[in-house]
Amino acid sequence: MMSDLPLDQVKTLLAVVDEQSFDAAAAVLHVTPSAVSQRVKALEQRTGRVLLLRTKPVSLTESGKVVARFARSLAQLEQDALTELGLGSSATRTVSIAVNADSLATWFLPALARLPQSHGVCFDLQREDQDHTAALLREGLVMAAVTAAPHPVQGCTSHRLGRMRYRAMASPAFVDRWLSSGPLPHQLPAAPVIVFDRKDDLQDRFLRGLTRRRTFTMVRHHIPASESFVDAVAAGLGWGMVPELQAAPRGDALVDLAPDRPLDVPLHWQQWKLDSPALAAVAEAVAEGAKESLR
Amino acid sequence: MMSDLPLDQVKTLLAVVDEQSFDAAAAVLHVTPSAVSQRVKALEQRTGRVLLLRTKPVSLTESGKVVARFARSLAQLEQDALTELGLGSSATRTVSIAVNADSLATWFLPALARLPQSHGVCFDLQREDQDHTAALLREGLVMAAVTAAPHPVQGCTSHRLGRMRYRAMASPAFVDRWLSSGPLPHQLPAAPVIVFDRKDDLQDRFLRGLTRRRTFTMVRHHIPASESFVDAVAAGLGWGMVPELQAAPRGDALVDLAPDRPLDVPLHWQQWKLDSPALAAVAEAVAEGAKESLR
Repeated sequence: MMSDLPLDQVKTLLAVVDEQSFDAAAAVLHVTPSAVSQRVKALEQRTGRVLLLRTKPVSLTESGKVVARFARSLAQLEQDALTELGLGSSATRTVSIAVNADSLATWFLPALARLPQSHGVCFDLQREDQDHTAALLREGLVMAAVTAAPHPVQGCTSHRLGRMRYRAMASPAFVDRWLSSGPLPHQLPAAPVIVFDRKDDLQDRFLRGLTRRRTFTMVRHHIPASESFVDAVAAGLGWGMVPELQAAPRGDALVDLAPDRPLDVPLHWQQWKLDSPALAAVAEAVAEGAKESLR
Repeated sequence: MMSDLPLDQVKTLLAVVDEQSFDAAAAVLHVTPSAVSQRVKALEQRTGRVLLLRTKPVSLTESGKVVARFARSLAQLEQDALTELGLGSSATRTVSIAVNADSLATWFLPALARLPQSHGVCFDLQREDQDHTAALLREGLVMAAVTAAPHPVQGCTSHRLGRMRYRAMASPAFVDRWLSSGPLPHQLPAAPVIVFDRKDDLQDRFLRGLTRRRTFTMVRHHIPASESFVDAVAAGLGWGMVPELQAAPRGDALVDLAPDRPLDVPLHWQQWKLDSPALAAVAEAVAEGAKESLR
């Protein structure tokens, strides 16, 4: 079935997904928004399925995800072929990767910087929680992911990168105010906590390991940026689970609340089974970087 | 019409939007997912409108946005009333704010830290592009926003915070390799560039001001985290528009490509017209912090 899909229509669908709207896709493809709309509609008629929900931003249906994933593999193979044919001098190869925020803030970028610039690879990074990056892979929105999920998404390979170690930390002043008058398991559940966003359950996991109490009544701040998260902990807004890699440079500004209770998050590299030199080079650089920085 | 809406149903809708799924909302409300589903359905029957698209994550329809916004105002007023009645000792007041990534990475968090901890305010921050934070306000997903949009969203007040100054920057090695053999307007369009995400048009705006060329063929990296963005510029992956506030601590690692061409982004504080002491205290702290850090 797939081979019967007109390539211009398939690529148009991909552009709409990447650019998040018909108008933006039209600008990138140098056609009118109405041409974009007609191509997507034609593709839907041909497959007999609704592929795209016309929400803001647009979102793919289950069938749409299958087609988008096919389209992205195809674009990658085409880019690689052009490069091998020597037609890729001005053509660059985009490698789209979903990566968790804490990896992006610490070891991931230095790993990517290992790649020789001559590769001409464009990095299209998407930031997601490590428990949710695999979903982006499954939906065909990225071709590789740093993920907590060890089991390969269908059509992908999985490779262990190492463990990212987190520690429950707070500022010295915070410890004085909230945690100095009794044992940690009794005091911590009532103290203000900082979480990254609603997908971040590291703080709750730490609390469940520390205490048997089920419900916690507390101030919860949501600070959805890695460096700002650590800034907020250092400023005394709350306690939080901080990656060791980010805690080290802060020195005495952060206190380890439970040195015998680190929390390790195993990270894996998953990528599509694609015979793409660009993707292979990125995977190798990431594996090397992880080996140096993760446990 | 609004006053006829059952409060438990309205609050349930809000929980589904905030927690992004029926299951997560059920866990927060301590009811079954089926009860959540029934309440939302009942609310839809009562209003005669579809309020929620059952996508992953769920998304609000236009009618749903109106109801969600009503619900959030209501929750805030209720929290404030409980606090005034002295019933709010364990009740905390959540202030949801949309803020652009560069503000979050620089002046915004120190501004929030000015608030006395005794306020018991929970910050629920959402990170968005400064050109898109106003949309979150309009959709009722947040009650205040740091935004580039000066004109108040309906039902909101708008207050000027100051200008955030950006400069086109690159690493010294990058300048040697890509920009040393001719004038900037000729060379920069062909050099690799780093952009934050697909909503970030600062780099394109700078280029449009610098050169008359319409199309640019170039390597574009997407690095969607403020500190990592500056790290990537310092590592030589590309040039990019860096906030002065973030460039200063990097010293010689960054070169200003066009000292006579800064790009200023005016920022505004917009918030709902709500007689809420918690929101007023936050607004005051933000205004003071902006006054010190912005132009």
